[in-house]
Amino acid sequence: MSQTLIRFQTYDDPPPPSATTARVAAIRAKLAEAGFSGVIIPRGDAHMGEYVAPHDERLSWATGFTGSAGMAIVMTDRAAVFIDGRYTLQVRDQVDLSIFSPQHLIDEPPSQWLAAHVKPGDRIAYDPWLHTPGGLEPIERAITVAGAKLIAVETSPVDAAWIDQPAPPLAPVVPHPLEIAGEAAADKRARIAATLGDADAAVLTLPESIAWLLNIRGGDVGHVPLPHSFAVLHKNATVDLYLDSRKVTDGLAAHLGNAVRLRAPDEFGPGLDELNGKTVLADPANAAVWVFKRLEAAGAKIRKGADPVLLPKAQKNEAEIAGVRAAHIRDGAALTRFLKWVTEEGTAGRISEIQACEKLEDFRRETGALKDLSFDSISGSGPNGAIVHYRVTQKTDRKLRSGELFLIDSGGQYMDATTDVTRTVALGTPTAEMKDRFTRVLKGHIALATARFPAGTTGAQLDTLARAPLWAAGLDYDHGTGHGVGAYLSVHEGPQSISKKPIAQPLLPGMICSNEPGYYKTGGYGIRIENLVVIHEIAIEGAERKTMEFETVTLAPIDVDLIEPALLNADERAWLNAYHQRVRDTLTPLVDPDTATWLTTATRAV
Amino acid sequence: MSQTLIRFQTYDDPPPPSATTARVAAIRAKLAEAGFSGVIIPRGDAHMGEYVAPHDERLSWATGFTGSAGMAIVMTDRAAVFIDGRYTLQVRDQVDLSIFSPQHLIDEPPSQWLAAHVKPGDRIAYDPWLHTPGGLEPIERAITVAGAKLIAVETSPVDAAWIDQPAPPLAPVVPHPLEIAGEAAADKRARIAATLGDADAAVLTLPESIAWLLNIRGGDVGHVPLPHSFAVLHKNATVDLYLDSRKVTDGLAAHLGNAVRLRAPDEFGPGLDELNGKTVLADPANAAVWVFKRLEAAGAKIRKGADPVLLPKAQKNEAEIAGVRAAHIRDGAALTRFLKWVTEEGTAGRISEIQACEKLEDFRRETGALKDLSFDSISGSGPNGAIVHYRVTQKTDRKLRSGELFLIDSGGQYMDATTDVTRTVALGTPTAEMKDRFTRVLKGHIALATARFPAGTTGAQLDTLARAPLWAAGLDYDHGTGHGVGAYLSVHEGPQSISKKPIAQPLLPGMICSNEPGYYKTGGYGIRIENLVVIHEIAIEGAERKTMEFETVTLAPIDVDLIEPALLNADERAWLNAYHQRVRDTLTPLVDPDTATWLTTATRAV
Repeated sequence: MSQTLIRFQTYDDPPPPSATTARVAAIRAKLAEAGFSGVIIPRGDAHMGEYVAPHDERLSWATGFTGSAGMAIVMTDRAAVFIDGRYTLQVRDQVDLSIFSPQHLIDEPPSQWLAAHVKPGDRIAYDPWLHTPGGLEPIERAITVAGAKLIAVETSPVDAAWIDQPAPPLAPVVPHPLEIAGEAAADKRARIAATLGDADAAVLTLPESIAWLLNIRGGDVGHVPLPHSFAVLHKNATVDLYLDSRKVTDGLAAHLGNAVRLRAPDEFGPGLDELNGKTVLADPANAAVWVFKRLEAAGAKIRKGADPVLLPKAQKNEAEIAGVRAAHIRDGAALTRFLKWVTEEGTAGRISEIQACEKLEDFRRETGALKDLSFDSISGSGPNGAIVHYRVTQKTDRKLRSGELFLIDSGGQYMDATTDVTRTVALGTPTAEMKDRFTRVLKGHIALATARFPAGTTGAQLDTLARAPLWAAGLDYDHGTGHGVGAYLSVHEGPQSISKKPIAQPLLPGMICSNEPGYYKTGGYGIRIENLVVIHEIAIEGAERKTMEFETVTLAPIDVDLIEPALLNADERAWLNAYHQRVRDTLTPLVDPDTATWLTTATRAV
Repeated sequence: MSQTLIRFQTYDDPPPPSATTARVAAIRAKLAEAGFSGVIIPRGDAHMGEYVAPHDERLSWATGFTGSAGMAIVMTDRAAVFIDGRYTLQVRDQVDLSIFSPQHLIDEPPSQWLAAHVKPGDRIAYDPWLHTPGGLEPIERAITVAGAKLIAVETSPVDAAWIDQPAPPLAPVVPHPLEIAGEAAADKRARIAATLGDADAAVLTLPESIAWLLNIRGGDVGHVPLPHSFAVLHKNATVDLYLDSRKVTDGLAAHLGNAVRLRAPDEFGPGLDELNGKTVLADPANAAVWVFKRLEAAGAKIRKGADPVLLPKAQKNEAEIAGVRAAHIRDGAALTRFLKWVTEEGTAGRISEIQACEKLEDFRRETGALKDLSFDSISGSGPNGAIVHYRVTQKTDRKLRSGELFLIDSGGQYMDATTDVTRTVALGTPTAEMKDRFTRVLKGHIALATARFPAGTTGAQLDTLARAPLWAAGLDYDHGTGHGVGAYLSVHEGPQSISKKPIAQPLLPGMICSNEPGYYKTGGYGIRIENLVVIHEIAIEGAERKTMEFETVTLAPIDVDLIEPALLNADERAWLNAYHQRVRDTLTPLVDPDTATWLTTATRAV
């Protein structure tokens, strides 16, 4: 019997601007009932994650806009939707402009719009579960200055109006094996509890933090194996875990042990009340306003500080790094099969962007280890490759053609690691300009891959190395060079980052980052070369400083047909040839003979 | 008749720890008279400059410590002197440790020491002319938390106790010629006044800002051609200039014109009172607490913001840049004569560090254009070269010896520019390690000199380029890579900087920076290669971003005997050979035949 394949990625067009007239009317009716002049509708949930469950898609329900970041404000007499530069076109396709005025999230922020439109005495509603104190602050200031009031509500007018709001997700929660995690949850609890200083407890609201701390995984949102839950870590290393009992699987309680008290989600509030008189650490960048209000009302002494799990989670242990290496070999073999296929079929004009995505998902599934994609693949041919956050849909789907470039940014979730890799391939013969640009991107990639740096160095300090070859030609790219990556967790994790932003977090041994410089010619083509790297401390003879370097773990050929060898110096050529030899030696045993033959050519020395 | 040469640099040993017992006793008597428990004694004057007049050397008078940065606190029962890492040894030589406990200015700051030692009810005196609001804030907070009070005094107990305090300086103030300044003071006044926005006036307290704005120069402190004064720039582009009339030279009033009202320094307070009801810009990073208190008392609306002259002053105009180029040719010829001499005499063991300084001063004087040195030369042979802020004295003076390195960091003040250059020369045959280190420093220097970067890039983003070749060997240097430089003004000027510190100021066309990576082996040798660079916007074919690059203006040979050619790539070799050819072509006509012959060898291609 054939079984229908449930794909991890879908290609639906964003819904057209339907039905929001009735929805906005319903929201306004609820506003009127409660005497509010407006309501703030962020895109997000109580866990501040990048992916949200259908239950939390309030922004797209109210506005039609389905982008991955944004906010709306519905007032009785007007409404606005706030989006960033990525979505200026999409918002106009999806949103009824007779209802919503589109605004730029950064240049015309909600606080500014509210300052212009609220009247003295206005009461503006917000859901305290959906905002952090840091995020809410400018909005609150603007409203207060205008003589109006920002009111936290128990049930948002949006949820009240949303009759058929999907239920919260209830994906099963399972133990994450010790041999993969590399450290028992009890040891993690004790280790983190010891860092709390004079705090009696820490409130954890980030699902990644809780999943890592307790060695559990779930599936409440797409692409990230996370269970939604809240937790309080006490200084005696015990934990209150607020998790819906319907998500608990056999053996989970035994895995968690007696030191972890499983409690119902609606006990989270009473649980915080129990911290009366205690000093409690909470992260104003990640925890909801609701948490701070409840702690305050409970009489807890709030210590604002970073989630204590963030940094330990970012520094992977030896078992995690071993998993990362193993997953990248498996993933690299699948990607290599794909690269051969896409180069041949794409040059022949026989496939589209969606077909490419589906084939790549197939190759990854054939490893037998794929749990999910790490994110929706970015599959851009020709001009679509120049759209940095492109997500192909039925409507935008485009045939791959000879003479063009094809960019594919994708990743897999495996039990032992999360991968994220971008390759750009020439279909047919590339132009001299394409080769010049690709080679500059490659030079930047190599400069970062081979960098050594002393303890204390931040990603912001290294970012320049990846850009300098493009800068030399008056070019640049408008995204970060690298983000942190989780281990069978979120493909984007902090606190490290490699970008122009002066983020003060030093790079530390065990951290995983992406190395992904790019170049984008609007209307022409996009180029990005992305590998993941792991940071290690190294011994150098004569060294006077504790020094670190990157180990590149991603394994897949970089298109040599796109390289202009005259632009590479001897060191760069040596790095590329050694990398390709490693790719060939490692992956050849794992692929079919045709792919092995192709790989030999694809990884030839330059 | 021979005339005694007055040297710009002296080599006196720091005074021994004499006489401070009586001085501290006198301060304590004044504290007792006024009912104070202590007094804060910063190193600085009302203008927050790097160099201070003898009148303002309160710290060295009270403690014996003569370093260029520091602070002391004298309480009735104890006293401390705060110094940074440069001065941990010197402070023990100069300060009576039975009176003063030495503390680290950053790691054990005055605020922390005060928090531990003040008692509730204590009254601690400070001179509001000698602190900025930003500098005073942590001290005030610590004292307040302890239940004590920080009291601004009109006459500090230190000045009251200092019977023979030298008078404030009265150096003549002269016009700075328009052909050198490149922009008339009237145009500058109008240009800056137009940037004040809704402020009615700006208070200027930095002597460099006032000197640049009004095209005047003076000589109230060593090495920087500045007159001490205060000024208020009004939005109608007129200025109140508070300047001692004894410093006014013939023709100054005519130069300043009717729009600049010359007023006596003691009218500065009443002048601020006149700003009652006005919106007044003042810089909390640079203006004294006194200014803010007076403006507040006067009923002015204070707008805190950066001194509006800082940025326009930093962006040199074409005339200033022409002057910078001319001065560097002149200065480079003098330095080249010196480098020949010091290499020969130093290798022969015939000279000392002081003799080297004096000879270099002589060569610069012989240009006929030298107004002053830009700073006390750093002349370090062998291990003394590894002391980053070394200043040679009779006691530390050391013979140059074959087999060692000699580092000389120096500069001249000329009417048309301020220079600052460092060269490191091998005396005799250098070791392989010396060559390795020197070549890595050179690679970093070249990487920065040849960098191109888009508009918006900060010095912090470029700093890494200069360090990467050292980092690759596990090495680094513990100082910034580059500082801003004035035009016949201070050798250190903001707001730009090239360093690890994430200073947000983008690099802008016309700014002058130093490019000075180094390497220091404690007890062994020091290496630094410093040229000044000017930032220019450039046109690149196919460029998509507004792009800038550096023009190296310093001209003097870089010791090729210290280079390990195998460590340089083709681009680096090409840069060095082209630079040396430019040095040779430009300077040969300006030096004697012997030096020309030496220069030909010194600048040979590698």
